Amino acid sequence: MNAREALRRAGETKPLVHHITNYVTVNLVANVTLATGALPVMAQAKEEVREMTSLASALVLNIGTLDPQTVEAMVLAGKTANECGVPVVLDPVGAGATALRTRTVERLVSEVRVAAVCGNAGEISTVAGLEAEVRGVESLAGDAEQAVRLVAKALGATVAATGPVDYVSDGETTLAVCNGHPLMGRIVGSGCASTAVVGCLAASAGTADVETVAHALAFYGAAGEDAAGLSDGPGTFEPRLLDAISALSEKPERLEGRLKVEGL
Amino acid sequence: MNAREALRRAGETKPLVHHITNYVTVNLVANVTLATGALPVMAQAKEEVREMTSLASALVLNIGTLDPQTVEAMVLAGKTANECGVPVVLDPVGAGATALRTRTVERLVSEVRVAAVCGNAGEISTVAGLEAEVRGVESLAGDAEQAVRLVAKALGATVAATGPVDYVSDGETTLAVCNGHPLMGRIVGSGCASTAVVGCLAASAGTADVETVAHALAFYGAAGEDAAGLSDGPGTFEPRLLDAISALSEKPERLEGRLKVEGL
Amino acid sequence: MNAREALRRAGETKPLVHHITNYVTVNLVANVTLATGALPVMAQAKEEVREMTSLASALVLNIGTLDPQTVEAMVLAGKTANECGVPVVLDPVGAGATALRTRTVERLVSEVRVAAVCGNAGEISTVAGLEAEVRGVESLAGDAEQAVRLVAKALGATVAATGPVDYVSDGETTLAVCNGHPLMGRIVGSGCASTAVVGCLAASAGTADVETVAHALAFYGAAGEDAAGLSDGPGTFEPRLLDAISALSEKPERLEGRLKVEGL
Repeated sequence: MNAREALRRAGETKPLVHHITNYVTVNLVANVTLATGALPVMAQAKEEVREMTSLASALVLNIGTLDPQTVEAMVLAGKTANECGVPVVLDPVGAGATALRTRTVERLVSEVRVAAVCGNAGEISTVAGLEAEVRGVESLAGDAEQAVRLVAKALGATVAATGPVDYVSDGETTLAVCNGHPLMGRIVGSGCASTAVVGCLAASAGTADVETVAHALAFYGAAGEDAAGLSDGPGTFEPRLLDAISALSEKPERLEGRLKVEGL
Repeated sequence: MNAREALRRAGETKPLVHHITNYVTVNLVANVTLATGALPVMAQAKEEVREMTSLASALVLNIGTLDPQTVEAMVLAGKTANECGVPVVLDPVGAGATALRTRTVERLVSEVRVAAVCGNAGEISTVAGLEAEVRGVESLAGDAEQAVRLVAKALGATVAATGPVDYVSDGETTLAVCNGHPLMGRIVGSGCASTAVVGCLAASAGTADVETVAHALAFYGAAGEDAAGLSDGPGTFEPRLLDAISALSEKPERLEGRLKVEGL
Repeated sequence: MNAREALRRAGETKPLVHHITNYVTVNLVANVTLATGALPVMAQAKEEVREMTSLASALVLNIGTLDPQTVEAMVLAGKTANECGVPVVLDPVGAGATALRTRTVERLVSEVRVAAVCGNAGEISTVAGLEAEVRGVESLAGDAEQAVRLVAKALGATVAATGPVDYVSDGETTLAVCNGHPLMGRIVGSGCASTAVVGCLAASAGTADVETVAHALAFYGAAGEDAAGLSDGPGTFEPRLLDAISALSEKPERLEGRLKVEGL
């Protein structure tokens, strides 16, 4: 679904998006979700995740800070989302950096049917089994376009590798998204936030197909462009980014002609 | 105690407020506490909560993200607060959304004597046993005025339901608070922050009686009004809200004539 | 190493800094690390901390919110850092406030060879075994200059006590740092952030000697001075502080003549 329609629907239906995420960027992720027009909820006790996911319109799993209980909660919530037909969006933060993260991603995609995987080039390359260099949670190299195609085919999912250009593929169609601004890479959690926006638009659209994911990233990038002009650095950029997301999601018609999504 | 006197005392005595809270809004809650003139401390290891609470002038329990250990820590800290005669303020985030949350609130109010319960209309209605619609952690419906009276009588506590109008009751007196601004509902953690302000003023006043709670919410709402005029959206609103809380708590006389608290 | 050289190197080498830290200020700590020119990574699962630390150029341990598993992870990561010759920087948040915190600090400095300890005067006095008054995580008293010398000699490490004047000692040389602004004490996590900056410059310099630590604190203080002039209160100060750190770390030559570091 295109971004304008998905945002219009989000504003009307206020879909609930259930995040199981890291404790570093959780506040930004929640605020980005709210600014996009959805309702965020964070819950990760194994006692309640099935119930919470069953109320939600999308589930976003982000492995930025891992512990064993959280992984179990992610599997439980993911299976519930599959049963309910709710799209699951996975952000494999730091895959390739440590064995635990790589293994956790492997487990999640084998036990849960994910609708979309969104990460940086290094993380997606790791998932693809390609050579990549990941330092901590930052990607330093990787052939993003090849990686998204490979992972999309392997998983039967939409796969996005974000960076100066975002690549999005479902294995057949591959799109390039050229919106964005360098300041986005200078705040912690920009990647987590973009995955959250994908989750919101998937919740609204009821699908995480290649168009919906690419449009979500283009919308997020356009908000970053708007925010950058009002910022003096990464600190003032973050609140301005939330303002810009909110302004565009309230008046999606302002996106007309701004989304730079191209077929490859 | 009225807000001006409570804020003046907070500025003099810098009361310690012990929060056991969620990991989504914890930073905002801590900064709001500091801006109100109190000293925040977050501690939830069962090994130290009794010691930390015994040093504090108020205990704020917020169930926004739950896990079994944290619930045990809340009970331990709550009992310590009761022994020390320190007011306990409870924010039943998401009560009604999942059985775990509803059950946890029931356990907390049965094992700990709470001085005040502050939530949104749906959460308070759930605690009251009334019908309510809670989606995730957002309240969508509920008769707030009836709910606060019922819960206040049942618990022998001050109960507040926040929203466009806040209702505060001790079972006999019910007050309506009309300060605030719609932007407050567009940042994540506005409710957690208002409960934190209640905790700060209760710490300063030594009581969470109906006047203290209503004045805390009116003060917080007035700060929101000041911040809204300087904001371009929810992102820039949050830092402006902290500035406004800080400015008013440093010069409480500026609240003169601004608090919209009325008996019902 | 002086701040200008350390920042220049950080910009070139983008050293990875591994933080095991509290959930209150973790987002600020990560953003400060990124703004300083380093790459932050947060990881605390015992299954991955050894691997993550072995990839890092510095390890920062912050005990702001403790639980038993995290303490074990800190010990594991600390020992790995020692094996790899990577500097370990410890922030003993709240030492002296509860027995758990004091005990944890004792355990960490006995099992891990720390390169630097950075805390407020009360925390460092507690580590020194001096009388101190710590309320929650705020220091209210303590003889900082005496405390840093004592702890530095006892541990064979660089020790900093931050406050209106920061004192830094390696047991032989003691330096006073007079940069900074009162607004820095009015945001939650300013101390955690200063320790993060010490970690970043130690990562870049390959050492946490007395000059590196003092210069890191002076640099951070200078950024606070720049930010204060653009702020209307603690809320708007925080994003401005990140902007200022980022601007100075990108052009370290702007620090020329601004660092107020004096021998005692």
